[in-house]
Amino acid sequence: MDVGYHSYETESTHTAGKVITCKAAVAWGPGQPLVIEDVQVAPPQKMEVRVKILFTSICHTDLSSWKGENEAQRAYPRILGHEAAGIVESVGEGVEDMKIGDHVIPFFQGECGTCICCRSQKTNLCQKFGVNPLKSVMVNDGKTRFSTMDGNPIFHFLNTSTFSQYTVLDSACVVKIDTKAPLEKMSLLSCGVSTGVGAAWNVANVQPGSSVAIFGLGAVGLAVAEGARVRGASKIIGVDINPSKFFKGKAVGITEFINPKDLDVPVHEKIGAITEGGVDYSFECVGNLEVLREAFLSTHTGWGLTVLLGIHPSPMLLPLHPMELFNGRQIVGSIFGGFKGKTQLPKLAEQCMCGTLNLDEFITHELPFHNINEAFQLLIDGKSLRCLLHL
Amino acid sequence: MDVGYHSYETESTHTAGKVITCKAAVAWGPGQPLVIEDVQVAPPQKMEVRVKILFTSICHTDLSSWKGENEAQRAYPRILGHEAAGIVESVGEGVEDMKIGDHVIPFFQGECGTCICCRSQKTNLCQKFGVNPLKSVMVNDGKTRFSTMDGNPIFHFLNTSTFSQYTVLDSACVVKIDTKAPLEKMSLLSCGVSTGVGAAWNVANVQPGSSVAIFGLGAVGLAVAEGARVRGASKIIGVDINPSKFFKGKAVGITEFINPKDLDVPVHEKIGAITEGGVDYSFECVGNLEVLREAFLSTHTGWGLTVLLGIHPSPMLLPLHPMELFNGRQIVGSIFGGFKGKTQLPKLAEQCMCGTLNLDEFITHELPFHNINEAFQLLIDGKSLRCLLHL
Repeated sequence: MDVGYHSYETESTHTAGKVITCKAAVAWGPGQPLVIEDVQVAPPQKMEVRVKILFTSICHTDLSSWKGENEAQRAYPRILGHEAAGIVESVGEGVEDMKIGDHVIPFFQGECGTCICCRSQKTNLCQKFGVNPLKSVMVNDGKTRFSTMDGNPIFHFLNTSTFSQYTVLDSACVVKIDTKAPLEKMSLLSCGVSTGVGAAWNVANVQPGSSVAIFGLGAVGLAVAEGARVRGASKIIGVDINPSKFFKGKAVGITEFINPKDLDVPVHEKIGAITEGGVDYSFECVGNLEVLREAFLSTHTGWGLTVLLGIHPSPMLLPLHPMELFNGRQIVGSIFGGFKGKTQLPKLAEQCMCGTLNLDEFITHELPFHNINEAFQLLIDGKSLRCLLHL
Repeated sequence: MDVGYHSYETESTHTAGKVITCKAAVAWGPGQPLVIEDVQVAPPQKMEVRVKILFTSICHTDLSSWKGENEAQRAYPRILGHEAAGIVESVGEGVEDMKIGDHVIPFFQGECGTCICCRSQKTNLCQKFGVNPLKSVMVNDGKTRFSTMDGNPIFHFLNTSTFSQYTVLDSACVVKIDTKAPLEKMSLLSCGVSTGVGAAWNVANVQPGSSVAIFGLGAVGLAVAEGARVRGASKIIGVDINPSKFFKGKAVGITEFINPKDLDVPVHEKIGAITEGGVDYSFECVGNLEVLREAFLSTHTGWGLTVLLGIHPSPMLLPLHPMELFNGRQIVGSIFGGFKGKTQLPKLAEQCMCGTLNLDEFITHELPFHNINEAFQLLIDGKSLRCLLHL
């Protein structure tokens, strides 16, 4: 689909430094349908970038925030969305790694490049721009760059707010990629695919010939499978209670499926039986404590590693006894797949372009931006992996 | 002290293949004083070894088993003890790596060498001879090698049962070391020192210049400090509510002490303040869930690793929320310091002999075997690190 962005640079010379009026999908309250309406987007400040969003999609974190599941994270009106791709419209003072017209991917887990975490090779956390669901304003001045047409602030979300034709991001939360990369697919790298592939590559470091179990076969879980396939895992077991997920799974390398509803034993017993004692790696992509425990017990004693990707809104603690850790199983959390966005996403984009990583299966639906509520419903109903919205 | 074991080989030619009558400290019930009495020790069966124990000491696991804290683990009469050193009296059929007169160290976490875990470099668990506190008989025939003088069985403990002048072990649970190594100190490698040093070396893999916090400064905690010192850690913080432990700590390289009773903030806040956000590694050597949580929070976000060494008898689960793992902190259990006893203890013994590892501080008391109850009391009162019993 040609959205005409190759001629974009000329257009933006007229808007740089000015307030832009554009369409955004505004959340006005928990669970209320998003309203597509005109909003005002202020110019980027120091070390900020204003991006014209061309494609965005919806991830479960948008869904739970839209529902307002965690009261402390509620802030309205707000522009949600964090998985997207676009083009730089203008840059604020001091931004040197991006310029007008660059093709970019926003990412919620920022990389300032200078804090103690960014300087470490062991983590992709960032002390300044790490993801913070409670944050709803910009770091520079504690204010928003979005406002309603009558001048009231509209809050930001996850450092990104991509449900808008234009958004302003800290430059630490957006990275330039090769202009030849297909932007519609690149939006997947903005969250879901990176989160899954990176969990397999960076966090678990899946080895050739190893065995993997993935609990929850949404886009993130399938991206874990794709990452494990690329790494040469010999057995990739997918677990989901929705059998419609199984069809997609084969395409991304899943070798065996387990529907817990079809079993008369716990899932971990079934997995233990078909893997000589358990898998090398398991991935929890659901955010459910019972699933977490099954994922943990599904790994082999001695070296099994469980990677947590799912968000756990329940206040309940880990359902593990400390002595269970003496069996040599480990558990580790993974944010954005351990990727340092600024440093590593450009190469990941290249790996998609050259076919190392196959993104063909992830976009199941495409809709115009004004159908965003329909796209939410597709995700809620478990019918879509990713519905790409064209802005 | 010369216990005359250099002339031992001649003696054992008279006992091989026969039942030996010797002194042992028998536990007859939970918390009852051990009784030094004559017991009969049967010859070793296939792949078993009978060892003359020369030195043994007491570790907290003996203490909790003696108290019968876990009802499921109670078995009486029983010979406790698992930290010791001795000399091979005779070997059973098929034992090829040890012979009469060899100097040996027993170890509770066996290494069969052939199971999937023993073949892996990632773990020191052993599927056949891994530590199992519920086990009280030999694998070969499900029977005991100890009996009372009137022929009733006396149960084994932790694959070792070293509170006896002679004991029978599976050959997977005992290893030959250099005859020139000082056996009295080598007994420390049988449990406490290996557990601590190995946690720093094998499990945490402490790096030069890193920071470490150790919670609980018994023999195991001090051995962690010694291991961290050898690895070149620049900051080694010791935490204990018993200030008498601090004196010993300096000798093994502890650079700073924290007594939680002296603080008006949680320990992790204090540690965070003196380490720019937390230590690289923390070690829980207490077996207390509140301490575990403090140890976890004392590490730096992004890469902090907490190693569990303490035994947690409480049925309470881990006091951690799954989302806390997304801060990049990890937690891992450590059994016997990750050492594969058969493969690695001989080298560890060499490292002690050449002075790489300093064991001078660990034996605080020495007593004749028949004073074993006194030695228990010293440990209960927190007065001893290790009291070496001469058999």
